[in-house]
Amino acid sequence: MRVVYADNNATTRVAEEVFEEMRPFFMERYGNPSSVHSFGSDVGKDLTQARERVAAALGAEHTSEIIMTSCGTESDNTAIRSALASRVGRNRIVTSRVEHPAVLTLARRLERDGVRITILGVDKQGQISLDALKDAMDEDVAVVSLMAANNETGTLFPIEAAAEIAHEYDALFHTDAVQSVGKVPLDLKKVGVDLLSLSGHKLHAPKGVGALYVRRGRRFRPFMLGGHQERGRRGGTHNVPGIVALGKACELAAAHFDQEQTRVRVLRDRLEEGLLKIPHTRVNGDRSNRLPGTTNISFMNVEGEAVLMYLDQNGICASSGSACTSGSLEPSHVLRAMGVPFNFAHGSIRFSLGRYNTDEDVDHILSVMPGIVERLREISPFVAENVS
Amino acid sequence: MRVVYADNNATTRVAEEVFEEMRPFFMERYGNPSSVHSFGSDVGKDLTQARERVAAALGAEHTSEIIMTSCGTESDNTAIRSALASRVGRNRIVTSRVEHPAVLTLARRLERDGVRITILGVDKQGQISLDALKDAMDEDVAVVSLMAANNETGTLFPIEAAAEIAHEYDALFHTDAVQSVGKVPLDLKKVGVDLLSLSGHKLHAPKGVGALYVRRGRRFRPFMLGGHQERGRRGGTHNVPGIVALGKACELAAAHFDQEQTRVRVLRDRLEEGLLKIPHTRVNGDRSNRLPGTTNISFMNVEGEAVLMYLDQNGICASSGSACTSGSLEPSHVLRAMGVPFNFAHGSIRFSLGRYNTDEDVDHILSVMPGIVERLREISPFVAENVS
Repeated sequence: MRVVYADNNATTRVAEEVFEEMRPFFMERYGNPSSVHSFGSDVGKDLTQARERVAAALGAEHTSEIIMTSCGTESDNTAIRSALASRVGRNRIVTSRVEHPAVLTLARRLERDGVRITILGVDKQGQISLDALKDAMDEDVAVVSLMAANNETGTLFPIEAAAEIAHEYDALFHTDAVQSVGKVPLDLKKVGVDLLSLSGHKLHAPKGVGALYVRRGRRFRPFMLGGHQERGRRGGTHNVPGIVALGKACELAAAHFDQEQTRVRVLRDRLEEGLLKIPHTRVNGDRSNRLPGTTNISFMNVEGEAVLMYLDQNGICASSGSACTSGSLEPSHVLRAMGVPFNFAHGSIRFSLGRYNTDEDVDHILSVMPGIVERLREISPFVAENVS
Repeated sequence: MRVVYADNNATTRVAEEVFEEMRPFFMERYGNPSSVHSFGSDVGKDLTQARERVAAALGAEHTSEIIMTSCGTESDNTAIRSALASRVGRNRIVTSRVEHPAVLTLARRLERDGVRITILGVDKQGQISLDALKDAMDEDVAVVSLMAANNETGTLFPIEAAAEIAHEYDALFHTDAVQSVGKVPLDLKKVGVDLLSLSGHKLHAPKGVGALYVRRGRRFRPFMLGGHQERGRRGGTHNVPGIVALGKACELAAAHFDQEQTRVRVLRDRLEEGLLKIPHTRVNGDRSNRLPGTTNISFMNVEGEAVLMYLDQNGICASSGSACTSGSLEPSHVLRAMGVPFNFAHGSIRFSLGRYNTDEDVDHILSVMPGIVERLREISPFVAENVS
């Protein structure tokens, strides 16, 4: 059966060009870039090129601002712990209820260890209030951590304005940009982000590689301690194929940015419009301010997991909530934070389109969804009067 | 020019079989194993198989004892921090002077944060004294961390006996086994190690993947906080290709263990005997108790870096000290700890042979080394009488 992969916020297919770029580094150019011999040290040039490509995609000024990591989660852990350690005498973190578990689980751990945590709520569109952020700030805040784009709804946070508010209080600003890099324009020369996390496998590089941007001049405390790699800022042998792949993926994303994101947006909009024709259906999130490929859509009085099962039987990959919290029967923490009513929150599905999706993919989803929802509503345990 | 790769302790070539095993997970089976849809969740079976293969190679009792990580350094950081956090009320770490930077850099950081660190010295062979370990123990020790095999000299530590001593004081025992897994026999059902670090790229899996063994029943505190992956013990999207590769690499290492290690040992012994014919040459480390492929050999009154340069010109990859600390002009901390005299320590070269080395490789090294040493001694700034 043909697979329609509409779960690009969970992970993406490695691009053919990315695979070809990294391939020689497994069995041919497999040296350790930290070696003295040229077989190993020559690989250092490829790491430099990768770093340049990542820096260019972010609009970073210097390649030294890029630290290679193993994933977005490591970048988030590193950023927040470093910010806390480097703002001596400050003991507070401000973040939001809709962050990724990489930030929220860490925040809860830090809270148990004595750090004060302030968690901003969001409105019905999943947006934070900049006024609430201002109110939350004081001289004890070491770091404000707000995601650039929400993984479940695609809602974009106003990180430029939020960073300015953080800086008024001399706090650092971190953004988990795992979902937005390569999908929404970013120029770190203009946006005052101090720390930014990104992940390879969300933009057609393989799983197992990520990066952390640390603005020049910001103090940094390593998380992973070991050898002198990454200028002493991240121990561990360089994941050469992964880093090369991340560089190529960033280059590709930047090269085709406008064309690709417009195409994906048109696909997403057509999918969303088609799905909204199903009765008692609503979109979750800020529709005017959103990732181009994401739609989070709720079908009243159906069970999201059941929808996913039927979609799966039709070869369609989608998601309810994030992959990182799937398996839990709780409705998504993001939709709960937005106050989505129970009978909608349970029936929410995230479709996330990307580079390799086609018109045929959208046609296929639209051809099966009405029937799935109808069938599930017929057997729904929810009170029938809610539907009619 | 043909490359003779004799730096297998720095990193290894990915095995063809390993590459083929992981290959489909980049562009075909690229789903996120945490997904609900079968395209993603099916990959979970491959992760389970990989975990079984890693567990089998270690003699672990349960796959739940294996936590997948991004590298040996992450495993070391995780193990030591977890041990410290889980032995409440204890505030001391015992380790050795010849550990990898992943352990020693972390220990120095923890010391600045108020943890008491005891660092055991080693004798001229690079061996620790079990009596010294006993003397160092008290009820404040949370964890003893001693490597299974030294990366520079190949010296094997008596980890079975050391673990017993740690347990007499109810401390946990961690071993950095990055260099020994797949090279020396190990059965964790018999050896009382509580925590063990391993790294993929030292045994023909790619860079960017490692594992941490945590004995069942031991308390564990996660290092990388995020999603529910690895039973909540390590956040971050699974590096599926890397994990599958690590599993295959462990299976291969186990399958050909005796034959391969005997072959490598014979090659190493012939290389070492040949090199020892060069005057004023000595082997560093415990020759009777050593990794099969490693020889660390010192040529009096020559500069190791210069030897490496000439070797490089002849297509031979070797190392002075570890790749993780190369670039530093300091002689290796391992050789200094062993009391290797200055004029020998500076002229030390590590050759580390592995699966893909051949008799021709050894012939080539032996054909060029005498000339290199002779030439360098002619221009040596060291006092001539030391040589004659």
